[in-house]
Amino acid sequence: MLIAAAQMASGPDRTKNLDVATRLVRRAAERGASLVGLPENVAWMGSEKDRPSAAERVDGPTLTRFAELARELRIHLLAGSIMEAGAPGGRVHNTSVLLGPEGQALAVYRKIHLFDAEVGDGASYRESETVAPGEGVVTAETPLGTVGLSICYDLRFPELYRALSRAGATLLTVPAAFTLMTGKDHWEVLLRARAIENQAYVLAPAQGGRHTDQRVTYGHAMVVDPWGLVVARASDGEGLAMAEVDTELLARVRKALPALRHRRLGG
Amino acid sequence: MLIAAAQMASGPDRTKNLDVATRLVRRAAERGASLVGLPENVAWMGSEKDRPSAAERVDGPTLTRFAELARELRIHLLAGSIMEAGAPGGRVHNTSVLLGPEGQALAVYRKIHLFDAEVGDGASYRESETVAPGEGVVTAETPLGTVGLSICYDLRFPELYRALSRAGATLLTVPAAFTLMTGKDHWEVLLRARAIENQAYVLAPAQGGRHTDQRVTYGHAMVVDPWGLVVARASDGEGLAMAEVDTELLARVRKALPALRHRRLGG
Repeated sequence: MLIAAAQMASGPDRTKNLDVATRLVRRAAERGASLVGLPENVAWMGSEKDRPSAAERVDGPTLTRFAELARELRIHLLAGSIMEAGAPGGRVHNTSVLLGPEGQALAVYRKIHLFDAEVGDGASYRESETVAPGEGVVTAETPLGTVGLSICYDLRFPELYRALSRAGATLLTVPAAFTLMTGKDHWEVLLRARAIENQAYVLAPAQGGRHTDQRVTYGHAMVVDPWGLVVARASDGEGLAMAEVDTELLARVRKALPALRHRRLGG
Repeated sequence: MLIAAAQMASGPDRTKNLDVATRLVRRAAERGASLVGLPENVAWMGSEKDRPSAAERVDGPTLTRFAELARELRIHLLAGSIMEAGAPGGRVHNTSVLLGPEGQALAVYRKIHLFDAEVGDGASYRESETVAPGEGVVTAETPLGTVGLSICYDLRFPELYRALSRAGATLLTVPAAFTLMTGKDHWEVLLRARAIENQAYVLAPAQGGRHTDQRVTYGHAMVVDPWGLVVARASDGEGLAMAEVDTELLARVRKALPALRHRRLGG
């Protein structure tokens, strides 16, 4: 079974973003992918202050369109994340939804760790001003194994992936919009570490390119195998990283090096 | 302040191992290192069955000699690990001791996670048959910051480094004897991930080369900075990886990207 991570550069024009995403999903499905992941903020990337006005409900136009696409193509589709309206305090949630091949929502995950940082690119990121954090650790059963959901900045928090691993996850999804400054030094290293320490596949769709406000994201959408090797990577620009999920490899890694059974500190 | 990670290939001849280690420590001190780390199993590496007979007490000849060396050179010396006699069930502990510049033991850490695995090099590793696990998470205060101790296979367990980080560690020590098969794909990635996610220096002394029983270790002793970059790496064979501990860099990283304050899952 093949999985694909999409790479694109979303802007503030939702129609355009959804057209690009749809094109990439169709291409992945034509090439045989049974699960396709889209990046964080797939439907809209604009300035932080406009975020609440760009938010939608989970039954809104973006997820309705993606659900139709998943049903038409008979695939699992990870709607990387959308800005979900209706969070406390006039804020939104940063929400990742895994859609099944009937178009049904199999899992709804709301980003737990919010990106408040300066990373040396001149911008000041204050996600928590407009986004309310989620609370729940979310997994879903699929024919590809148990999928554990996360989003972007969550990647820095190994305890989330330990919780997903304890819940049985063998495929970790990390849709992201890493900045150029953090991506170049942290993105691949942390994705590989999560794969190695949890002996799981990692599917990492990514924003990559120039957005509004001179913001630039790192890209490098990739798939990492349970031994921690990058087995597929998108090139520069719009594209896909596609690789096989090999359940025999997964079993072999976990049998030869049973680190998940050697945990002794509640991790 | 400079720190150094030593790389060597210990064998079953303790006198010879201690001579090599002493030479490397003296060289590092001459070049200005105020903390020098030696690898796991620095004093003895032989077959697993001979391990109990090669064990010593923490007041035995190896640590006595290293304590004299630390006192003479007025440095902190991490005696990577020794086989410590006297564990329950006729077993030993795999014990890392941080010695201060008076020769005093500042910290005694006993390896918590034991390496029972097959890694495709023809050997079957069963550390738990001869080694009893430790229980305690151990840190020590030094002029270089709070040092958090670990050993080799511990590196696969992010929850240990989260516990060390919560205890204030800004310098994580990981003396190791990684196999060639796991080292090539996991060693650098996991060291860098521990540095990035805990925003701490990582000092990683390593066994590197050919030992008895055709066993080969990976080497690549290194120092990683709190941004996750490898700032020093030993070349092939006996040698040192030396780098500066820059407390201003540490503070800058933690201020710009305050991920340690963003933990929400008890990690």
